Amino acid sequence: MTGRRVAVIGASGYGGLQTLRLLQGHPGLEVTFLGGERSSGRRWSELVPFLPLPGDPVVRSPDPEAVAAEADLAVLSLPSGLAARLAPGLIERGVRVVDLSADYRYSSLARWQEVYSAEARETPRSDADLCAEAVYGLVEWREAAIRTARLVAAPGCFPTASLLALIPFLKQGLIEPRGIVIDAKTGTSGGGRAAKEHLLLAEADEAVSPYGVVGHRHTSEIEQLASEVAGQEIQLQFTPHLMPMVRGLLATVYGRLRDPGLTAEDCSTLLCAAYRHSPSVEVLPVGTYPSTKWVRQTNRCLLSVQVDKRTGQLIVMSAIDNLVKGQAGQGVQCLNLLSGQEACTGLPLLPFYP
Amino acid sequence: MTGRRVAVIGASGYGGLQTLRLLQGHPGLEVTFLGGERSSGRRWSELVPFLPLPGDPVVRSPDPEAVAAEADLAVLSLPSGLAARLAPGLIERGVRVVDLSADYRYSSLARWQEVYSAEARETPRSDADLCAEAVYGLVEWREAAIRTARLVAAPGCFPTASLLALIPFLKQGLIEPRGIVIDAKTGTSGGGRAAKEHLLLAEADEAVSPYGVVGHRHTSEIEQLASEVAGQEIQLQFTPHLMPMVRGLLATVYGRLRDPGLTAEDCSTLLCAAYRHSPSVEVLPVGTYPSTKWVRQTNRCLLSVQVDKRTGQLIVMSAIDNLVKGQAGQGVQCLNLLSGQEACTGLPLLPFYP
Amino acid sequence: MTGRRVAVIGASGYGGLQTLRLLQGHPGLEVTFLGGERSSGRRWSELVPFLPLPGDPVVRSPDPEAVAAEADLAVLSLPSGLAARLAPGLIERGVRVVDLSADYRYSSLARWQEVYSAEARETPRSDADLCAEAVYGLVEWREAAIRTARLVAAPGCFPTASLLALIPFLKQGLIEPRGIVIDAKTGTSGGGRAAKEHLLLAEADEAVSPYGVVGHRHTSEIEQLASEVAGQEIQLQFTPHLMPMVRGLLATVYGRLRDPGLTAEDCSTLLCAAYRHSPSVEVLPVGTYPSTKWVRQTNRCLLSVQVDKRTGQLIVMSAIDNLVKGQAGQGVQCLNLLSGQEACTGLPLLPFYP
Amino acid sequence: MTGRRVAVIGASGYGGLQTLRLLQGHPGLEVTFLGGERSSGRRWSELVPFLPLPGDPVVRSPDPEAVAAEADLAVLSLPSGLAARLAPGLIERGVRVVDLSADYRYSSLARWQEVYSAEARETPRSDADLCAEAVYGLVEWREAAIRTARLVAAPGCFPTASLLALIPFLKQGLIEPRGIVIDAKTGTSGGGRAAKEHLLLAEADEAVSPYGVVGHRHTSEIEQLASEVAGQEIQLQFTPHLMPMVRGLLATVYGRLRDPGLTAEDCSTLLCAAYRHSPSVEVLPVGTYPSTKWVRQTNRCLLSVQVDKRTGQLIVMSAIDNLVKGQAGQGVQCLNLLSGQEACTGLPLLPFYP
Repeated sequence: MTGRRVAVIGASGYGGLQTLRLLQGHPGLEVTFLGGERSSGRRWSELVPFLPLPGDPVVRSPDPEAVAAEADLAVLSLPSGLAARLAPGLIERGVRVVDLSADYRYSSLARWQEVYSAEARETPRSDADLCAEAVYGLVEWREAAIRTARLVAAPGCFPTASLLALIPFLKQGLIEPRGIVIDAKTGTSGGGRAAKEHLLLAEADEAVSPYGVVGHRHTSEIEQLASEVAGQEIQLQFTPHLMPMVRGLLATVYGRLRDPGLTAEDCSTLLCAAYRHSPSVEVLPVGTYPSTKWVRQTNRCLLSVQVDKRTGQLIVMSAIDNLVKGQAGQGVQCLNLLSGQEACTGLPLLPFYP
Repeated sequence: MTGRRVAVIGASGYGGLQTLRLLQGHPGLEVTFLGGERSSGRRWSELVPFLPLPGDPVVRSPDPEAVAAEADLAVLSLPSGLAARLAPGLIERGVRVVDLSADYRYSSLARWQEVYSAEARETPRSDADLCAEAVYGLVEWREAAIRTARLVAAPGCFPTASLLALIPFLKQGLIEPRGIVIDAKTGTSGGGRAAKEHLLLAEADEAVSPYGVVGHRHTSEIEQLASEVAGQEIQLQFTPHLMPMVRGLLATVYGRLRDPGLTAEDCSTLLCAAYRHSPSVEVLPVGTYPSTKWVRQTNRCLLSVQVDKRTGQLIVMSAIDNLVKGQAGQGVQCLNLLSGQEACTGLPLLPFYP
Repeated sequence: MTGRRVAVIGASGYGGLQTLRLLQGHPGLEVTFLGGERSSGRRWSELVPFLPLPGDPVVRSPDPEAVAAEADLAVLSLPSGLAARLAPGLIERGVRVVDLSADYRYSSLARWQEVYSAEARETPRSDADLCAEAVYGLVEWREAAIRTARLVAAPGCFPTASLLALIPFLKQGLIEPRGIVIDAKTGTSGGGRAAKEHLLLAEADEAVSPYGVVGHRHTSEIEQLASEVAGQEIQLQFTPHLMPMVRGLLATVYGRLRDPGLTAEDCSTLLCAAYRHSPSVEVLPVGTYPSTKWVRQTNRCLLSVQVDKRTGQLIVMSAIDNLVKGQAGQGVQCLNLLSGQEACTGLPLLPFYP
Repeated sequence: MTGRRVAVIGASGYGGLQTLRLLQGHPGLEVTFLGGERSSGRRWSELVPFLPLPGDPVVRSPDPEAVAAEADLAVLSLPSGLAARLAPGLIERGVRVVDLSADYRYSSLARWQEVYSAEARETPRSDADLCAEAVYGLVEWREAAIRTARLVAAPGCFPTASLLALIPFLKQGLIEPRGIVIDAKTGTSGGGRAAKEHLLLAEADEAVSPYGVVGHRHTSEIEQLASEVAGQEIQLQFTPHLMPMVRGLLATVYGRLRDPGLTAEDCSTLLCAAYRHSPSVEVLPVGTYPSTKWVRQTNRCLLSVQVDKRTGQLIVMSAIDNLVKGQAGQGVQCLNLLSGQEACTGLPLLPFYP
């Protein structure tokens, strides 16, 4: 049987916290190693009094040798640039890795160095082969490859919501490759747990604002897979906006239909077919639009589609929880596949409302 | 001198409350009549203990005769369909009217009856002439006409933010008439003060959701003026989203540049020129994006523009306070013009931050 | 074996929604009847598109005969006054009832009629015997009685948080019976899902306000059990405050220590001992104070205690999720006991943070 | 005439921002110097693009000589410990100072060193005489002294709300000196603009939590003046709580009435009399309770009183905006008095609602 002992590295950030929470009570995975650099040596309950873990473990320095001795799988929840320092050593020692950072999301190391230039300056890398080998962990479209991967790069939160909405239409060639607009809205937890002025409640509450307009890093991540499935280069407009809420992400995706006769019902049927074997993705009836609250703290993506016959525009709305399906939950899906389980094993799919 | 006595009709909804607040301390306008249907006969302080008015007036039934006896100007802050019952009688008696509802926003009564079909069924109207006469109260583009009008239809909140962003580009023919996308985000106060389940804090907080996708009423209102200034029919995509906040509205507007050589700086210069005489509109430096918080409780509209050279897209961001520049503040601007004052007299332009 | 088929009556309010969510995936209880008055005849997915239930059942009128044919247990999530119309018929037919309303929280019908006078006028009742028989469902202090009850009255959210904090000290006679102050803070979901102006996001967000100062109904509910465990009449001060958040409830409880030598550590030890067999209640280390976020969407109550040596005051802080431990989760605890299971079976105890 | 040129030192924190906003358009005060340590040399519009100032000044290092050359009055909005380094030099040079920090709130330097021990270790001070001379800037109770002061210590936000509620009752000896409880709730902007993890929106939203339980610094500040007006030592319980909102502060104050025959109306009459000459303080009718939203961005304090005849408890509720009446607005009141104007000159007293 495939090993099911999991190391969680970077445990006290939001990605790590979600991963640990999701793995508590998971029927087929067990946390056996808790790793962290800054919090190394400290007892868990001192760091996080509100999430008791069995045995109240001590956080340890993520030495690859030590990790390999106690875990079959590792989730890295670290800032971009740091994961690449750790992953090669783990993989060498037979630990299969799910990386929640951007370090292995590009199949080309050079592309990563271009997009994440600041991180690249701080972290010289020579693992172009690992970049090429790593599987992009968008479970609904890469399931078979993930099952046998040594290294999975879990997608970013914006790419997850955007690509789940776009891929079925790009794959079928139903929308024009030019002119796609993704207007995305995210809760502030997407910015992580490190203290930054603009993410203070006093700053970010009662406020909506765009950021990273033109050239946000996730643009290139979305375009990479979009181009691949479309079979031609896709350049699109992606604009993220900061919302006054903790979690949740909505992508409103606009594209022009090639066939003006297609109705919303046609498009909805197509989406349903594309995701009929994906329990994490649900297509809402035409005319019902997703609220991020409907997926809060679940691993679901809710899609809804509408068509404007006057303008020929297709509008796809895609809602996820940025920290679950957009991060840690998708990471656990990957762990499930790596360990020979169903993708959604142990993952919450129903929200506590309101 | 032009009369400066103002009647506020519909005083305890959000539009009325903002109007009253803005008129307290206004150097050139005085509230002389407080009208309301349901609250008629009640003392103001019982209805609204938190906004003391001089003399603590009693709310009165908005009888046109009584209003005309005591006021030169009237602001109607009533649900669509009700304003049209009151406005003709007031105008006949010489009261000049600023209507905050949609009743006179379309120059064609038939168009209103089509778009506001439910209201049209409840309110039979025969004031097509008044519809044709009414001036659309977007102050920055209709100042001269408003000064001499008998009836001003203050624009909706979404049209205000969207049109201030679009008009300069449409007027100059710089963007293509097809493919314009307006992705708009509004606080829940835009839905008014009447109790509705989906606007409860428990429902709307920690949630972002689209609504009225394809066919929202404000689409036609935006298209009416957009087409007029463009000199050709404009059909565009407008998608409103409900934000977990009280007030504030951001419109992110996407259009394709006709001349791919135009830079963000060029476009910014154009905007600056268009609004150089409009103290309510400010253009931010390229690369600085507006937060709705920066205009909270002010009558300002903040614009910022960005261009994606790869895709040829123009992105204009437009932030307003939906209840001030998007409603009552714009109404006061109209009152100022009607009474021969500068448009921004007595209006707050600086925010209390945070 | 005790029956484990559950009817949920009043399914689309917050209490019903939480109950249904908690029972999805519950290992030892099954929902077999979905009842509602207003929504009767409608398919579940139309009412609540975001919480799919197996088989997508139709909501039915809560006829006691029909309920008894298909369920062994019933949870009533109805406004006060309505539960009393339904409960007697169910109990007669052998259905054991957990009532989430206040109808059976007072052992004296006359007391209920006094406190809930408006409801009493609308609902004439003659079930004084049932009032006397009903067990108050505060699981941690009434476990044995609940196991064999026919009718359990689940406590209110404020009494739950307040009594869990107070009972250990009252029982041991450690605080003076006079001068107890409970300053409580609740999210707006405590006000239910029916649309009310003061619970609109536009009204309740960015606002903190007291309500029901002196004489709030929960005062008498708290005093009833407090007096019983203290063995003398307790009259205390209870002041609820509305918070700008969806869920969560914090009670800050002040009492004067009889023995000025007691330290915070002594008091903490006492609390730990009192709840050592209660997995839903956790006592935090002295100096760590509970956030409502730490219990969000869990069935836990977090307690922390502090002592001011200068003033002799004991301060107990008690945090719960008002809709889980404060309502539906406690209801499920009662169902668990009624059906011979451990109190916490199937209930979430760990939060998704943040 | 008294000088009315104002220096604002520490301009880009919340205290400075509010002060600058309040002074824009002030009829009798003019900002002539903008000082800051870290932002020295930078143009204002780069630092704060959303609050344009006339002439777009450059922020300057707060050299006392330079300040004295251009200003008659100075507001210091600096962290505790830093103000004491600057104030003596300013006062020597004839600049009258309003300090928003805690440095001069205690008449005894030794007491400050005890309460602010960490700051005292970093800032050795020898200005005990200035501590003794400084006037505590609670305008409603110290007006005459402030008018002629050289140095005014503006009170903290919690003491302002608490003392305005308590003083009238303590002064008249109507409540018992022992057993007073102040349960206070504040928005997160009270923690300032510096980035701290616990003030992130992701952490603080959807959360209510107590902090500084027993021994919070403001306890001693409240007790100092409370003891003085009561003519005997007062030791009371003060517990602050962090609210999920930007601004607003509510203090719920509990005290035992000495005369059990006093009614809420009696107590309300007493409050009205105490504040009849204070336009910033308004007493609500008995039974109407203040929301922090009712004072948002105003300089008002709303008070309401209730009495529980059963328990003999007096409950006084006191709502302010923590950044205006609780900080910068009160500072401007002091500037007004120092410059011979009415206390409320130029200050907003009416809220924009909602």
